[in-house]
Amino acid sequence: MTQELINFKDKFSKFSEHWSPRVIAEMNDYQFKLAKIQNEFVWHDHKDTDEVFIVIEGSMGIEFRDKTVLLNEGEMFVVPKGVEHKPFAQEECKVMFVEPRGVKNTGETSSELTAENDVWV
Amino acid sequence: MTQELINFKDKFSKFSEHWSPRVIAEMNDYQFKLAKIQNEFVWHDHKDTDEVFIVIEGSMGIEFRDKTVLLNEGEMFVVPKGVEHKPFAQEECKVMFVEPRGVKNTGETSSELTAENDVWV
Repeated sequence: MTQELINFKDKFSKFSEHWSPRVIAEMNDYQFKLAKIQNEFVWHDHKDTDEVFIVIEGSMGIEFRDKTVLLNEGEMFVVPKGVEHKPFAQEECKVMFVEPRGVKNTGETSSELTAENDVWV
Repeated sequence: MTQELINFKDKFSKFSEHWSPRVIAEMNDYQFKLAKIQNEFVWHDHKDTDEVFIVIEGSMGIEFRDKTVLLNEGEMFVVPKGVEHKPFAQEECKVMFVEPRGVKNTGETSSELTAENDVWV
């Protein structure tokens, strides 16, 4: 078995770009990704999948059309598929995403913030 | 949208049993579960799915037939499907599991440690 022990702090130390998720692990056909986020992302949704946000360090928010959810370290939120959302963070926030392999960060929306997919760290 | 903000500390405060995973969220057909573990679990595997361990607080180990992996807070490990393993913790450790809905904690092994499935907290 060649599985690697994954340390979040260590993985975060290896990249600095914002809104650029890095894959750290796969479970079946799902991926665990880390991202550093700051300022506002774009409105988008994911038509075919829910998306999990877990805050590892810092604070962030997710704006929805009908409300805003604020997340601190040790908190998670599941964005249901098809629901438009716009993540944001005033200061840099370290986040883990869980979603199926192949999901683009901007979903159905094309943007200069659309990141290359399947980049591992 | 009725999704709930999930706080790990809050969820952990609501149960005390060891080796008794509680579901805190679903993403598509996957579940996120929290468990408090202490002492030794049983040898088991999951024939059809990988299993993710994320340590939220404390330290634990996973014994495999060929090695032992030690995990501290902020670390994760993916146990591949079909690989026999035996989790353990000297002191109480708080863990998050991610796995498909319906997975039993003892996998193919029947044990007094087999927990009721799909219990939410």
